[in-house]
Amino acid sequence: MVFKFIKGGVTSPKGFISSGIDCGLKGKNLKDLALIMSTGSCNSAGVYTTNKVKGAPLLVTKKHLENKTAQAIIANSGNANTCTGKVGIEDAEKMCRFVAKASNIKEENVLVASTGIIGVKLNIDSIENSIPVLVKNLSKDGYKDASEAIMTTDTIPKTLAVEFKIQGKPVVIGVMAKGSGMIHPNMGTMLSFITTDANISGELLEKALKESVRVSYNRISVDGDTSTNDMVLIMANGLSDNPVIEEEDGDYKIFLEALKKLNIEIAKMIAKDGEGATKLIECKVLNVPSEKDGEILGKSVICSNLVKTAFFGCNANWGRILDAVGYSGVDFDINKLQVSLKSLKGNILVFKNGEPVEFSVDEAEDILSEDEVSIILNFNSGNYSTCCWGCDLTYDYIKINGSYMS
Amino acid sequence: MVFKFIKGGVTSPKGFISSGIDCGLKGKNLKDLALIMSTGSCNSAGVYTTNKVKGAPLLVTKKHLENKTAQAIIANSGNANTCTGKVGIEDAEKMCRFVAKASNIKEENVLVASTGIIGVKLNIDSIENSIPVLVKNLSKDGYKDASEAIMTTDTIPKTLAVEFKIQGKPVVIGVMAKGSGMIHPNMGTMLSFITTDANISGELLEKALKESVRVSYNRISVDGDTSTNDMVLIMANGLSDNPVIEEEDGDYKIFLEALKKLNIEIAKMIAKDGEGATKLIECKVLNVPSEKDGEILGKSVICSNLVKTAFFGCNANWGRILDAVGYSGVDFDINKLQVSLKSLKGNILVFKNGEPVEFSVDEAEDILSEDEVSIILNFNSGNYSTCCWGCDLTYDYIKINGSYMS
Repeated sequence: MVFKFIKGGVTSPKGFISSGIDCGLKGKNLKDLALIMSTGSCNSAGVYTTNKVKGAPLLVTKKHLENKTAQAIIANSGNANTCTGKVGIEDAEKMCRFVAKASNIKEENVLVASTGIIGVKLNIDSIENSIPVLVKNLSKDGYKDASEAIMTTDTIPKTLAVEFKIQGKPVVIGVMAKGSGMIHPNMGTMLSFITTDANISGELLEKALKESVRVSYNRISVDGDTSTNDMVLIMANGLSDNPVIEEEDGDYKIFLEALKKLNIEIAKMIAKDGEGATKLIECKVLNVPSEKDGEILGKSVICSNLVKTAFFGCNANWGRILDAVGYSGVDFDINKLQVSLKSLKGNILVFKNGEPVEFSVDEAEDILSEDEVSIILNFNSGNYSTCCWGCDLTYDYIKINGSYMS
Repeated sequence: MVFKFIKGGVTSPKGFISSGIDCGLKGKNLKDLALIMSTGSCNSAGVYTTNKVKGAPLLVTKKHLENKTAQAIIANSGNANTCTGKVGIEDAEKMCRFVAKASNIKEENVLVASTGIIGVKLNIDSIENSIPVLVKNLSKDGYKDASEAIMTTDTIPKTLAVEFKIQGKPVVIGVMAKGSGMIHPNMGTMLSFITTDANISGELLEKALKESVRVSYNRISVDGDTSTNDMVLIMANGLSDNPVIEEEDGDYKIFLEALKKLNIEIAKMIAKDGEGATKLIECKVLNVPSEKDGEILGKSVICSNLVKTAFFGCNANWGRILDAVGYSGVDFDINKLQVSLKSLKGNILVFKNGEPVEFSVDEAEDILSEDEVSIILNFNSGNYSTCCWGCDLTYDYIKINGSYMS
């Protein structure tokens, strides 16, 4: 089966259009209001943050998705609309109502998401005034503006699509996401919106979404802080004309595989573009007794501030990696563990048989100077392997988050 | 009952002497080898890191403490002697043997601790050559040199003593500790050595130590990384002549109270002197259903990189506090929660009844500019209250940990 990544995003599947504009929430003439629209209604699903403090838009979206059907997603950056009391809920409902009215669709078929500062009331008048323009601007090319409009401290828009076939019919899945800070997803994530023209039942769409989120967004961390507004939404309009996927058959497996690949790519983009980050840190955990063990071990390493700062300094201080492995809570035999560091520049073994392995500090520094580096932990004690992704911790993370409004 | 903090440290109780010298492990003419000695043998106890990767000195100390008796502690900085294989264990044993030989005490009555870089073999010859001088230098005044000799990236030595009475007899407990980085203790901590002239059984000494560690070292965090070498040791030589404490009676309660107060003070010193820190952040959690809930909530807040960077910037971004409360895993009613920020400069309420409370940004900045600030979370839903301590996350933390050897 061929899965081909293509330039594009949420409008790459048939029947989706999108737009993004500046409505004044972020200031500095930056785009901050995005809309994704399908020409017809879609089977839809969502996964959400496990944070007990939940953003108002998340509560409204969850309600609107009870019937697993949607047609549009409205999202703003510059304000999370969280911890804003009753007015917050009303404002999130209003955002859906305004879109429904301007585009003549059902209010409960509009989903809503917000990202930005917590605890500040939304300027709902600005949003109301801007929605007619936002609807007017909807186009196939609009995915670019939309992906910019959900950025906060992201330095690049995150947008991608994947093309494949089911029963000979071409199917496309597109995605746009924002990440950067407060990124430590748990069953949900920052914001990620996925569209597809696949023909698939609501139940299986939800199942595939959850399964793909588990191995993509839930395996990254920027700063260990799980956000209040994390949300991944998917809408499938069925226009690709493949025989409807209603069982966990071969077609479902192909769809799931494509969705996983796409979500892993976008999750890696989010990790690499973490606040202040200079590089992507991949932690491969090989040969452990269970997938869960692998995930706990990998996350413990990529979340360690000491590992993150060492990698910022291109410092092969592998003792910090072993420290993070040791406090993860997972049992293991240190004498079976092999630790290597790898990038395009090379590969060095640093620990084996319970003892340090001598290596050249210069060579290690050279390997770690790449913008994508891997830590490979081979536990030699099981049949499962996993991968997690994070980024380094830098002066710029402090700069970005020490300032007043962010 | 009066508990009086006094200038001093591990030599403040009767019958203890100490010394600290430079044996060349750290370089730059910095002291790196410390010795604490009691004139007679002591009932002793220890608590240790829960990290699955354990330093060699920890394993040797644990073995030597099986009989709950000790007379001396030898400690070095500049090298953790961890992940160093069989030679590491042999080197830790040698450190005890050299001290025993030079001071004519039993080898199994010597405890050993090391702190510094992981994965580098110890220069045991330097240590061997220096031990006769170390023993010769033992004195009442030596607590200062000893507390300097266990420093790594600490900027100040941490040493203190507390004086109180049991049955009319004056009793003293003294302590020295090192902290700074890789500080997120869990049932053990960085290094902390406690001495006392109290007359108390080994069993109750161990019980009091564990109880006091739970509410002091285990409630601080600098960077969320639990070290491989964390260890708190206590030695009680009984010279104060109080009737021996063998039951959990009033005398035990007084001793425990003094030990808690002392350990909380030194734990706060460690948090305030965290790597790169400019301030102590205290998180008071009031009126929750259990002490465990309070601890989880408080730790979640002080461990959040986003809260830590906000406080570095004197930025009253309380949304990040609510975010950390929300992902802690503890259930609570957000409508009952009140959040305040406090320091010597004043006190402001920022969140109440599920809604933001308006406040002056200038006033908040002024409050947060102090070097000791408090976050007060009143959940209004139970009878337990706790306190945790952390520090801000700054450019200097990145500077210290991005460089090669640390």
